[in-house]
Amino acid sequence: MARADGRSPDQLRPVTITRGWLAHAEGSVLVEFGGTRVLCAASVQDSVPRWRRGSGQGWVTAEYAMLPRATNTRNDRESVRGKIGGRTHEISRLIGRSLRACVDYKALGENSVIIDCDVLQADGGTRTAAITGAYVALADAVAWMRARKMCAGDPLIGSVAAVSVGVVGSTPMLDLCYTEDVAAETDMNVVMTGSGEFVEVQGTAEGKPFDRDALNELLDLGIAGCSELTRMQREALA
Amino acid sequence: MARADGRSPDQLRPVTITRGWLAHAEGSVLVEFGGTRVLCAASVQDSVPRWRRGSGQGWVTAEYAMLPRATNTRNDRESVRGKIGGRTHEISRLIGRSLRACVDYKALGENSVIIDCDVLQADGGTRTAAITGAYVALADAVAWMRARKMCAGDPLIGSVAAVSVGVVGSTPMLDLCYTEDVAAETDMNVVMTGSGEFVEVQGTAEGKPFDRDALNELLDLGIAGCSELTRMQREALA
Amino acid sequence: MARADGRSPDQLRPVTITRGWLAHAEGSVLVEFGGTRVLCAASVQDSVPRWRRGSGQGWVTAEYAMLPRATNTRNDRESVRGKIGGRTHEISRLIGRSLRACVDYKALGENSVIIDCDVLQADGGTRTAAITGAYVALADAVAWMRARKMCAGDPLIGSVAAVSVGVVGSTPMLDLCYTEDVAAETDMNVVMTGSGEFVEVQGTAEGKPFDRDALNELLDLGIAGCSELTRMQREALA
Amino acid sequence: MARADGRSPDQLRPVTITRGWLAHAEGSVLVEFGGTRVLCAASVQDSVPRWRRGSGQGWVTAEYAMLPRATNTRNDRESVRGKIGGRTHEISRLIGRSLRACVDYKALGENSVIIDCDVLQADGGTRTAAITGAYVALADAVAWMRARKMCAGDPLIGSVAAVSVGVVGSTPMLDLCYTEDVAAETDMNVVMTGSGEFVEVQGTAEGKPFDRDALNELLDLGIAGCSELTRMQREALA
Amino acid sequence: MARADGRSPDQLRPVTITRGWLAHAEGSVLVEFGGTRVLCAASVQDSVPRWRRGSGQGWVTAEYAMLPRATNTRNDRESVRGKIGGRTHEISRLIGRSLRACVDYKALGENSVIIDCDVLQADGGTRTAAITGAYVALADAVAWMRARKMCAGDPLIGSVAAVSVGVVGSTPMLDLCYTEDVAAETDMNVVMTGSGEFVEVQGTAEGKPFDRDALNELLDLGIAGCSELTRMQREALA
Amino acid sequence: MARADGRSPDQLRPVTITRGWLAHAEGSVLVEFGGTRVLCAASVQDSVPRWRRGSGQGWVTAEYAMLPRATNTRNDRESVRGKIGGRTHEISRLIGRSLRACVDYKALGENSVIIDCDVLQADGGTRTAAITGAYVALADAVAWMRARKMCAGDPLIGSVAAVSVGVVGSTPMLDLCYTEDVAAETDMNVVMTGSGEFVEVQGTAEGKPFDRDALNELLDLGIAGCSELTRMQREALA
Repeated sequence: MARADGRSPDQLRPVTITRGWLAHAEGSVLVEFGGTRVLCAASVQDSVPRWRRGSGQGWVTAEYAMLPRATNTRNDRESVRGKIGGRTHEISRLIGRSLRACVDYKALGENSVIIDCDVLQADGGTRTAAITGAYVALADAVAWMRARKMCAGDPLIGSVAAVSVGVVGSTPMLDLCYTEDVAAETDMNVVMTGSGEFVEVQGTAEGKPFDRDALNELLDLGIAGCSELTRMQREALA
Repeated sequence: MARADGRSPDQLRPVTITRGWLAHAEGSVLVEFGGTRVLCAASVQDSVPRWRRGSGQGWVTAEYAMLPRATNTRNDRESVRGKIGGRTHEISRLIGRSLRACVDYKALGENSVIIDCDVLQADGGTRTAAITGAYVALADAVAWMRARKMCAGDPLIGSVAAVSVGVVGSTPMLDLCYTEDVAAETDMNVVMTGSGEFVEVQGTAEGKPFDRDALNELLDLGIAGCSELTRMQREALA
Repeated sequence: MARADGRSPDQLRPVTITRGWLAHAEGSVLVEFGGTRVLCAASVQDSVPRWRRGSGQGWVTAEYAMLPRATNTRNDRESVRGKIGGRTHEISRLIGRSLRACVDYKALGENSVIIDCDVLQADGGTRTAAITGAYVALADAVAWMRARKMCAGDPLIGSVAAVSVGVVGSTPMLDLCYTEDVAAETDMNVVMTGSGEFVEVQGTAEGKPFDRDALNELLDLGIAGCSELTRMQREALA
Repeated sequence: MARADGRSPDQLRPVTITRGWLAHAEGSVLVEFGGTRVLCAASVQDSVPRWRRGSGQGWVTAEYAMLPRATNTRNDRESVRGKIGGRTHEISRLIGRSLRACVDYKALGENSVIIDCDVLQADGGTRTAAITGAYVALADAVAWMRARKMCAGDPLIGSVAAVSVGVVGSTPMLDLCYTEDVAAETDMNVVMTGSGEFVEVQGTAEGKPFDRDALNELLDLGIAGCSELTRMQREALA
Repeated sequence: MARADGRSPDQLRPVTITRGWLAHAEGSVLVEFGGTRVLCAASVQDSVPRWRRGSGQGWVTAEYAMLPRATNTRNDRESVRGKIGGRTHEISRLIGRSLRACVDYKALGENSVIIDCDVLQADGGTRTAAITGAYVALADAVAWMRARKMCAGDPLIGSVAAVSVGVVGSTPMLDLCYTEDVAAETDMNVVMTGSGEFVEVQGTAEGKPFDRDALNELLDLGIAGCSELTRMQREALA
Repeated sequence: MARADGRSPDQLRPVTITRGWLAHAEGSVLVEFGGTRVLCAASVQDSVPRWRRGSGQGWVTAEYAMLPRATNTRNDRESVRGKIGGRTHEISRLIGRSLRACVDYKALGENSVIIDCDVLQADGGTRTAAITGAYVALADAVAWMRARKMCAGDPLIGSVAAVSVGVVGSTPMLDLCYTEDVAAETDMNVVMTGSGEFVEVQGTAEGKPFDRDALNELLDLGIAGCSELTRMQREALA
């Protein structure tokens, strides 16, 4: 079965990772998965949240948001509505959790890194693109800190990448674009470390429930996709 | 390895499903998984959200919340803080998505069912207990509607149950209580239909990433647990 | 004139006071006045609000809320609407004020007790049921504190109970249920100490203004009702 | 016992009722009780709230607020804090309820009157001064409507006035100023119709509970005070 | 061309500046420009905002608001809507900025003055009337502070006054009333020091863009108007 | 006097206007003034705000915001804080007002164009860069509408460009970067039509008041700068 853009089912869209896109941030990356474009900015702060003070340990967190016209029709700003929606909350939490899987809080010392992931343009898979780009921004921010002797050892104990997979028209596929995502019967996000272990697996039946075989096929695709993204992250950081 | 309450790793806590706990709601259930106690109230409305009007189709949604003293230390009310937290949003969305997997919107007609899941007491697994109880409340509300000829056919095309599983001290375990949940290296929520298919699988590395073997062991436990909960739901509804 | 449930005008509904309904709270009571069911949870904190610090004195406060489906038709959550309504504010303030009438702040020391009163099911008189139950939860919390030597002497200098009275179809009645409350021409809440003095008297003309005779008849009923409730509180605490 | 300003216990402060203080409002009154100064503006709208539409009946409501520097120390604006406090809610509801006691909704037709009561300067008794002044502003707004034939008959079926009373140093007193209010053991607000019946009676034990004799003495003072205020309202409107 | 109230184009409306209108505030002014009536209350606080602490310098800020019925039709309260509108924000910032132009922070010491400008009645030019009145209230508050030796020298290094000008029907005019303001093609606010220098110039094309000649004519009018208002401020403070 | 980047006082920074930066928006521009980078997205809607319906006229509005790490230190998101700050409100209003100066509402028909101006990176002059870029995005959106015959004639009756000017170290300068802006004694934003008339002039004394000569020198610089920006807009749209 042919995909809209001619890809094979197990093929990623063209991915680009542009480091240093912003002048001020300690780490910044413009990550693109096809038409999905996310700006990831890592900000270093020499303090930690109140509940963490005095622990000798650091903290890493993330905030996700979309510009109003990242999508096909304009969405109202959450700042104007006066509150953050459930989807935004959910994705911000997922990105933060994913990044923390590769961080040694002790080595980080009592410092924080906040990663802002702002979707400039959306075409499916924004949360997984954000995680993949945010890791690179985090790595740059950590390098910045180490150059300034802010850390005791290396706070990065691995890397993290993520990709979406799904079943579209009975075919399991890697890295869904928006039109595929909308048509998917099952949708899964896979977050993995560079060494091939799972950080997060979130599979959701959109149209109808899925069986264990489908789950396994999707995991296979996700593992292969994350492995390739890990390679790209390494190249970008080289 | 012994669990705090003497259960074997693949054993559920004592589960009770009390129907009709409230006088006013069209369906209501007090569901208990050990010390976790969730009140599920299903409210029928003969209208649908604005974006659904004129479609001839119904809608099912859920709202999750905790009483301030459901937990060991008191939490401030979200109504007093003036906004809903990320965790609350995330769980409300999960419950709604899970319930919708067993609903035929056409048969429901232009009616809505809102399921309020209020945690009266929390001891781990509140979201999966909520899903398990909410399904029974939904079934009662649907029966109430059918007795009033509000539906065209049966809007329930299956059942849904959910359970948490996790790896604690290297041992995969079913239905974690709070102290186990806090100690878990990996945490997974499994939502399944009564016919044994997945509706939602959410696995999260809490302490360290997990490999595919661990994922499979947790799925085995979750499948067995959901199967037993499905049996209990049927008994309760008999 | 017969009442819907066969009571005489000066008769309370069946009242039950169940202590220890929650595992975590320092004091907890499920109080029922007929179909009205309120869960009262007392939380002890070893601190006081900012404006009270350094005074050597404690503080007692209360928060009242209703579950969305406590009532005949569902109410939106105040957390979702993003703000607390006027009625909720008013009742929370009334409960707090009433409880503070029996507290010796000095003996309490710089500790706080917060009483959460959540209406699980509503059938009229929720605020007065809440006060009556909250006092018992407060007494249990104070006993818990004294067992831990947190207080200097006994912080409870008396007890507090409350009941609603009203004129329905020209007849003054005690302890109105919802249908009576809706039909009442005059509505009054009476809060009294165990020794028979007034803490709060709030009489409101719903349909038409009332004269001093009606006021006096309602007070007579309220005094008798509070006296009986005080006896029940003592039995529950015995 | 002498009062700070030399009044006898049963004496009102100098009261002035200035009509037409604002150019735009359909009715407006600057009411002063000694140093307490409240601006009451009645706005007529030829519509009713959504829940009232099609009933053929009108609506009257009120909003109370204080300017930040009405008091001895500055209070933050509720608009800046982003929410209305409990006290403001409670008083707005009281004023609206009190005014509605003298309104015939049918005669009002499907029109609304909103009475804004803004405290320009506070020296005790702001809520009762607001009710007393708001009635006069309402009467002017109703006259304005009748001149335009908006009503079917007279929507005003009586008048409403209010005053505060309290026990200060064991002496029952009428119309407490701020320093008396702060020192009061018992505080009561009495709202009465021009024909001498009660609309609202709210007695609160501030320092210690009160007995029925004290309640009766306060009611006597309140009745006399409201009677005098009713006379002043009539003079102002003559 | 005749103006609605018979003024010549370069003529101010009758201006009154009434000091000491409030009993509690350290400085208070009721300022009137024709039908525009603004109450300005200056509150002294012996502290500064967090970001200013330890600097040895003070702070002056302002908050602007309108009563709901200051205008011809009633506006909802910003406190009820739960947020401050853009216009309110903009004007509050303008007033604060303008007043700070005549303040020596060092001489003020670590004290704050907050000027609340509440529009009781609006008939055009409320923001410029507010600035003109607020300066006088500030001067009184500073005198109050100096009498208490709270300042090191004179914190007032000049005075500030403001006026609106605009082009109406091709004629440049001074001090627009509401009907003129609505009809204006160009609208400008001019804020000046007592020594004749500009603090703020804000010109806006309402209907059509304006050329440099129009700009110069408006500035000429504004300069003359501010000069006259400065004289009135001096008289009021004499 | 040399500027930090070697420019002469009357020289703009390098300006680039990149059209079509986004795939979904009807008009989109990435505008850069040196290090200031603003993404302007124009969204067309075939409806107007409620107050405009049935008028046969269209509407143009704008929303301005900054990404959290656009600046040297991170700013909290306004969506997270739950409200829009005064500065954001003020700039959004300025951009909308400026754009509306070149729009014929009648020709636009009952359609709206919303221009989102999101600052990706800030180095001074973000509001004037936003206006300059937003006009080009608006022109593209209008062309898109005309190609679809949504308009009756040409809704664009001119063009609009804007630039900041200021006095730094006694020298009037064009197009201030951030470090110059912070050091400026006087700051002015000039918005002009392509035909050389003023739309908005906002001059603010930051450090000390300014006289009419300074005002005139700043206007001269602003006029020249806007003229050059108008030329660049034409080239970009050619």
